[in-house]
Amino acid sequence: MFELDKLKDECGVIGIYSPKDESMAQKLCFGLVALQHRGQESAGMAILKDNKMKYYKEMGLVQEIFTKEVLHRLEGGDIGIGHVRYSTTGESYVANAQPLVVNYKGGSIALAHNGNLVNANTLRDELEEQGSIFQTSIDSEVIANLIARNYSLGLKEAIVKSMERIRGAYALTIICGDNLIGVRDPNGIRPLVMGKLGDGYVLASETVALDVIGATFVRDIAPGEMVIINKDGVDSSFFSTGQKCAHCTFEYVYFARPDSDMDGSNIYMTRRNAGRILAKNHPVDADMVIAVPDSGIAAAIGYAEESGIPYGVGLIKNKYMGRTFIQPDQSMRELAVRLKLNVLKENIEGKRLILIDDSIVRGTTSGRIVKMLKDAGAAEVHLRVSSPPVKHSCYFGIDTPSRKQLVGAVKSIDEICEMVGADSLAYISIEGLIESIQIPGEKLCTACFSGDYPMAVPKSANKFVFEKC
Amino acid sequence: MFELDKLKDECGVIGIYSPKDESMAQKLCFGLVALQHRGQESAGMAILKDNKMKYYKEMGLVQEIFTKEVLHRLEGGDIGIGHVRYSTTGESYVANAQPLVVNYKGGSIALAHNGNLVNANTLRDELEEQGSIFQTSIDSEVIANLIARNYSLGLKEAIVKSMERIRGAYALTIICGDNLIGVRDPNGIRPLVMGKLGDGYVLASETVALDVIGATFVRDIAPGEMVIINKDGVDSSFFSTGQKCAHCTFEYVYFARPDSDMDGSNIYMTRRNAGRILAKNHPVDADMVIAVPDSGIAAAIGYAEESGIPYGVGLIKNKYMGRTFIQPDQSMRELAVRLKLNVLKENIEGKRLILIDDSIVRGTTSGRIVKMLKDAGAAEVHLRVSSPPVKHSCYFGIDTPSRKQLVGAVKSIDEICEMVGADSLAYISIEGLIESIQIPGEKLCTACFSGDYPMAVPKSANKFVFEKC
Amino acid sequence: MFELDKLKDECGVIGIYSPKDESMAQKLCFGLVALQHRGQESAGMAILKDNKMKYYKEMGLVQEIFTKEVLHRLEGGDIGIGHVRYSTTGESYVANAQPLVVNYKGGSIALAHNGNLVNANTLRDELEEQGSIFQTSIDSEVIANLIARNYSLGLKEAIVKSMERIRGAYALTIICGDNLIGVRDPNGIRPLVMGKLGDGYVLASETVALDVIGATFVRDIAPGEMVIINKDGVDSSFFSTGQKCAHCTFEYVYFARPDSDMDGSNIYMTRRNAGRILAKNHPVDADMVIAVPDSGIAAAIGYAEESGIPYGVGLIKNKYMGRTFIQPDQSMRELAVRLKLNVLKENIEGKRLILIDDSIVRGTTSGRIVKMLKDAGAAEVHLRVSSPPVKHSCYFGIDTPSRKQLVGAVKSIDEICEMVGADSLAYISIEGLIESIQIPGEKLCTACFSGDYPMAVPKSANKFVFEKC
Amino acid sequence: MFELDKLKDECGVIGIYSPKDESMAQKLCFGLVALQHRGQESAGMAILKDNKMKYYKEMGLVQEIFTKEVLHRLEGGDIGIGHVRYSTTGESYVANAQPLVVNYKGGSIALAHNGNLVNANTLRDELEEQGSIFQTSIDSEVIANLIARNYSLGLKEAIVKSMERIRGAYALTIICGDNLIGVRDPNGIRPLVMGKLGDGYVLASETVALDVIGATFVRDIAPGEMVIINKDGVDSSFFSTGQKCAHCTFEYVYFARPDSDMDGSNIYMTRRNAGRILAKNHPVDADMVIAVPDSGIAAAIGYAEESGIPYGVGLIKNKYMGRTFIQPDQSMRELAVRLKLNVLKENIEGKRLILIDDSIVRGTTSGRIVKMLKDAGAAEVHLRVSSPPVKHSCYFGIDTPSRKQLVGAVKSIDEICEMVGADSLAYISIEGLIESIQIPGEKLCTACFSGDYPMAVPKSANKFVFEKC
Repeated sequence: MFELDKLKDECGVIGIYSPKDESMAQKLCFGLVALQHRGQESAGMAILKDNKMKYYKEMGLVQEIFTKEVLHRLEGGDIGIGHVRYSTTGESYVANAQPLVVNYKGGSIALAHNGNLVNANTLRDELEEQGSIFQTSIDSEVIANLIARNYSLGLKEAIVKSMERIRGAYALTIICGDNLIGVRDPNGIRPLVMGKLGDGYVLASETVALDVIGATFVRDIAPGEMVIINKDGVDSSFFSTGQKCAHCTFEYVYFARPDSDMDGSNIYMTRRNAGRILAKNHPVDADMVIAVPDSGIAAAIGYAEESGIPYGVGLIKNKYMGRTFIQPDQSMRELAVRLKLNVLKENIEGKRLILIDDSIVRGTTSGRIVKMLKDAGAAEVHLRVSSPPVKHSCYFGIDTPSRKQLVGAVKSIDEICEMVGADSLAYISIEGLIESIQIPGEKLCTACFSGDYPMAVPKSANKFVFEKC
Repeated sequence: MFELDKLKDECGVIGIYSPKDESMAQKLCFGLVALQHRGQESAGMAILKDNKMKYYKEMGLVQEIFTKEVLHRLEGGDIGIGHVRYSTTGESYVANAQPLVVNYKGGSIALAHNGNLVNANTLRDELEEQGSIFQTSIDSEVIANLIARNYSLGLKEAIVKSMERIRGAYALTIICGDNLIGVRDPNGIRPLVMGKLGDGYVLASETVALDVIGATFVRDIAPGEMVIINKDGVDSSFFSTGQKCAHCTFEYVYFARPDSDMDGSNIYMTRRNAGRILAKNHPVDADMVIAVPDSGIAAAIGYAEESGIPYGVGLIKNKYMGRTFIQPDQSMRELAVRLKLNVLKENIEGKRLILIDDSIVRGTTSGRIVKMLKDAGAAEVHLRVSSPPVKHSCYFGIDTPSRKQLVGAVKSIDEICEMVGADSLAYISIEGLIESIQIPGEKLCTACFSGDYPMAVPKSANKFVFEKC
Repeated sequence: MFELDKLKDECGVIGIYSPKDESMAQKLCFGLVALQHRGQESAGMAILKDNKMKYYKEMGLVQEIFTKEVLHRLEGGDIGIGHVRYSTTGESYVANAQPLVVNYKGGSIALAHNGNLVNANTLRDELEEQGSIFQTSIDSEVIANLIARNYSLGLKEAIVKSMERIRGAYALTIICGDNLIGVRDPNGIRPLVMGKLGDGYVLASETVALDVIGATFVRDIAPGEMVIINKDGVDSSFFSTGQKCAHCTFEYVYFARPDSDMDGSNIYMTRRNAGRILAKNHPVDADMVIAVPDSGIAAAIGYAEESGIPYGVGLIKNKYMGRTFIQPDQSMRELAVRLKLNVLKENIEGKRLILIDDSIVRGTTSGRIVKMLKDAGAAEVHLRVSSPPVKHSCYFGIDTPSRKQLVGAVKSIDEICEMVGADSLAYISIEGLIESIQIPGEKLCTACFSGDYPMAVPKSANKFVFEKC
Repeated sequence: MFELDKLKDECGVIGIYSPKDESMAQKLCFGLVALQHRGQESAGMAILKDNKMKYYKEMGLVQEIFTKEVLHRLEGGDIGIGHVRYSTTGESYVANAQPLVVNYKGGSIALAHNGNLVNANTLRDELEEQGSIFQTSIDSEVIANLIARNYSLGLKEAIVKSMERIRGAYALTIICGDNLIGVRDPNGIRPLVMGKLGDGYVLASETVALDVIGATFVRDIAPGEMVIINKDGVDSSFFSTGQKCAHCTFEYVYFARPDSDMDGSNIYMTRRNAGRILAKNHPVDADMVIAVPDSGIAAAIGYAEESGIPYGVGLIKNKYMGRTFIQPDQSMRELAVRLKLNVLKENIEGKRLILIDDSIVRGTTSGRIVKMLKDAGAAEVHLRVSSPPVKHSCYFGIDTPSRKQLVGAVKSIDEICEMVGADSLAYISIEGLIESIQIPGEKLCTACFSGDYPMAVPKSANKFVFEKC
């Protein structure tokens, strides 16, 4: 166990419109560092400068990839987009890194995509039927093909027509001609915000990316909205209306950074709210509220505030755990969790603890943490989870294990409590979570908890038949 | 500004005595990961297996260096030592990485050293006078030479004689013959603890290294104590007695991990105590207590508990800021602090804040943080520092800037308050800090605050005349 | 001057059909090492194993790229193709490395291409008009698109239709379905040979690739021929007939390895013949015949044999000159030629030399070599060149400088002789070169010497508008 | 078989005295590239600039190590030395790379050493007895210790005293104080030459290093001579006289570059002489003389000239075989020789060949080459070797296999002939080799052929007890 038991996000995007900006690459780089939590596998950026497109993408963290030398080669620009990516193994290679940059009839186009299309295979089949070839397994290549095939309609109409074909979750930043384009799917599943930067504009998955480059938040891009940003300013239009709004709840639970604001709610505040609601609905007498760091901290503070039980630190996280670590020997495996989390024995000894975690996915880590706490002398450990049990797979850009691996899908809460060895276990309810987010429930996607998907979801897996070693 | 305004530690050491241990390299690796906060520049380990010494050391983080392949080459062992290092630029190259492994009359010897000798130059001069040559600029090479020159006295006496010559701060782990040796300087400046691991033993700079390899804490090595661990068990002896005990206070303030116990006190608890004492001595009316993460969190919680003002989160740290980052353009420089720390605007807007930092060194960061908070709408920012003003250089293993760069040495508290733009500023007193640590003041070194050094300190710099590019 | 003054080839290809071959990757690797002289910029291979395609391609030399670990990941296979590439700067990045592996309606297809299409831009325009997007600047992507668009016709017809559209030089190896396919352009400009390997088959640019994997030469693939190799054996068909045969003369002059046989002639023997013809047509009284190593050696031996003047060594080549070398300071620039070639003073002092070079392109090196020889004491230096003056650009896969840089295009032979400081200078005639190759002149392309191109050639440059940094 | 069956040299050295030379690092780099054939495992240089020593050394080829960036860090200098190294496995790590740079009483000293000391272990024991420690397994560390211990005698006397202690083969370049020092062992086993470069001087293992930096040859350093070069010019002195001169014969046979002059003889000319003598003493009727490239070429030309049988090319060497290559599968092993050498079938078919090799060590390659030639249709293969059978180990800087692996030591010539499958086999005699070199036999070391060592040689192996992984 080196990875804590969390779901993985799949991407973050950014786009900057700022003509003749000497620091374009550095601004994209700052923004991508701020979005790094959304994907640590690969990163890339494409920059249009004097109508010439340059790009660079690589496996690794933003700061490893964008060295002084690489930034120098990308120096200056008018429009730029960037991307950070997480992906499941097997499709994890640099050809799949984004932005995707292609040549088509209208010139060159660069795309960065956060999300997942549910009809990608169908569209790919159809495009192949018409003679298209595919070199990657990313949905962005499908989107680029659609735009290219609708080219003759003019840019705006070509994108609209393409968006009408794709179904699923997508927040896109695109460079096409002299335009920076931002698109958000009709359900508004994945987030996308717009900011102002001097005379220019910024699009990004989260507001934190605006903060680090000195941009001011303007507004969220609306579900089904497309913005075309160029020398004439921002042109907004809707290519789809009347669809159910379905913002991803898990962004609030775990993915987004606490200092981001998303569709009107601040992430930290919603998490603290969730802790308060948990305290109200699942109180327990105890001496201290502690969090599984870092993601449980806001809810733990909320729980402490509501319950009046003091907040304290019971677990210390090692800041230096990298993304990779040598597979431990059998004899060392049990200890490996301690590399990530250690117990603050002196502070929890003899105490009745309320342990707040933001979510339980497979349930593999919780048991080890409870055991560590008890071994260190905790009198009781009451586990409170600030999201409902994860029971269903996500098809909209989140890497979820198969249902049989989701402990919430295969065990009752009592069974999970016994499995993890806690003295009691409670999850926030779906209603409680919705309340914490302060967005009406009908505007949120809670499918991973409820199974209530905002659209039909596919059965089959990716059909790709080649693999880069 | 990418580095927060903190002092830098210089090293961490570990030693394991565990005959025929297949996981020796992995255990050392786990321990070094747990000690990684003590040095992120280079790391290394030396392992004795069947009387043959192997070693590997490299620039970088433990997990970057000790890949599967390297661990495989180091597989198995009887005795092992390891080291993580931080150093100032200019002497930062792999020849200076530790452990130092040398051949001498008695066979091979491996040394890992945390600390700094104040008479290294004098000893080096003297040894050179006797014909010694030096290939590195680390003190460990001086120590190895002394041991080699005293070889004929027998191992124990050779080490004792060598320790009698060196002055300064040192916690050493040594492999020599079939022995694992641990030595702590007569003042006990640098920490060193002993743990039990099955039938074997572990020595380490901090108890967290014991935790991650499943060892149980036995005791701290005492000032002036040498332990020789071999098949006959642990032989303890004192090569120096009657010296003033002078444990480094800054370990409690900032260096050590909060989950470590050091000379009888838990680090987290002492930091929380410091926060409480601050609250008692420097109260202020406010709405929320926030910390400069992560090092100010314990004191902030203590301050909140004592004052009754709620603890909250006001600053979010980016977990993905690596050790290196491209130098920002002039236009981006002001923004760079945001890559490390961002304000949680929604939680602090309109509030009167008490901001807890563990220390202020140059004072460069505090002003930016105060400004960020005020720009985000904080009504007031009262800065409270859980250590006294840093006014003097350390000669015992801490990398301190020159005195004129220490803001505490050149400005009054009022001037600093004005400089950083806080509404009020207060530091804990030296007495308060001592009280928080719960070790008698006469057993602590507070020289960086008080100038009261436990021994005479040198004037001159390192005389080394070659440099590896 | 670090590169000797030679034209650059652009690629080498290989293909192996050998079901259930555990050593498939290693065989491809051996073959590519044998073809390494045809391209040192990037290399790659694609392997079909149990109907699953894997591939790996990278910048660098074959042996740097295909490490033990990479070969392990590619282990086993039924059909494989490989490619080595040289390219001009600016388009030199890994996305342009080959084989190109794509997904299309019929599954996956892998292509390796040596040559250059003269109507690539036209076809790309046309394909883009139909909605295709392009991710690289290599012609192979055009070919893959054509095949994909003709998919419904069935494999064989799809390839035939595609080949009917493309014009230029191409030797292709393709994996498509269960087939290894080899195609040679209707003019037979680029070479392609077939060999037998146990029950399987090998296709390669040169026979040397057969030798190193233990295959026996069967025959050259004919101009306009396509071979489809599968479990039913070899199916040969012609998609184009009646075109002028135009084998590239420069393969014989410089590109191909001397131990290769190409379209019926052995390279070494044709070069030796050229030397003999030079001796007959351009005799001069002298003491020794020396070569510019290594490419001039065969002709020098031929010249010596014919003239009766002894062959000797006058220039020594440094075997350790890599592909890259630091740009020398101004003061060192004149010396840099010596890093590649040094004079064997003792053997040439006081002698009248005949210096044989295989070709002169820009003329930059010849002068330096003549000067080195004279400075070392050569009494006379008579330069004889075993190819005619290079006067015209190649559009069929050879990287030629612009015409104004071709010294043969802008200066008379007398002027060149004076420029290089030789005592006399003579080139073989086009007729002489043709005679040396022992293939009728009407079956050879001598366009770079004569300007007599076998087909219309384009005027415009590549229109690509994006660039990978 | 990837390495041809040759002995390995162990090092090459260079030294440049050229005050305020902006191109110092580049000059050293050029010189080391010219000496690269003497060692391809590691390379390094040390430069004194304004009395400050900088150095850089690394595993790999000169051009891989000394990148633009590294050369920039080493920019400018007054005195520089450099080294290329080959070593046996197990001691092959960067700590053993040279130059060795150490600090001693007199400041810093940098040493580069080609050769091998026969009393290194004795001296190391003795120095350890006096308290020295050793961090590498290279003899240079012994030498540096000796100089340091004799420091008080003054530089010149310290070196003389040190040289009086060491026995074996050594060509040293040293930077010490403001001096560039060159030393050659009393027997003159390893080569060392001096050249003039503007107002400065160059020392190098071979004259080719002078050529590439534009220095003019002055003279060989004499056996037992030490030159101290500084602002006062060149001070020459002899620290040992009357020892038997014993220049290494194998330098002439194989190690040195053909374009080098060594102790009065040009390498190429001596090799050609050897071929002529072979022809005289071991004639055979044949159609063509061919060489094992590249080392057999000079002797083959000599043989051809003397015998009147034409010289031709029968084997082609792949220029792109790097130092490492993936271990071939069993099925590919036999083919691996073809990666290095291929037969030029068309030129040898049906012919009676005389095959010239410069030496046979283990005999592993010769058989494969003979078989390749016969398989390709050679009517007869008569093997002629331009050095006598290698029968004895070298203790003076050459890496020889153990005696039982030396085919010349364990088999008769007839047995070897049968083993390799040649139609006849003959070696040049020791007398013949001496005659070819044109230096009196009593001034040459022929120990590897004759067992007649110029001094007593050690029995025991290196006692080093630690190993870098």
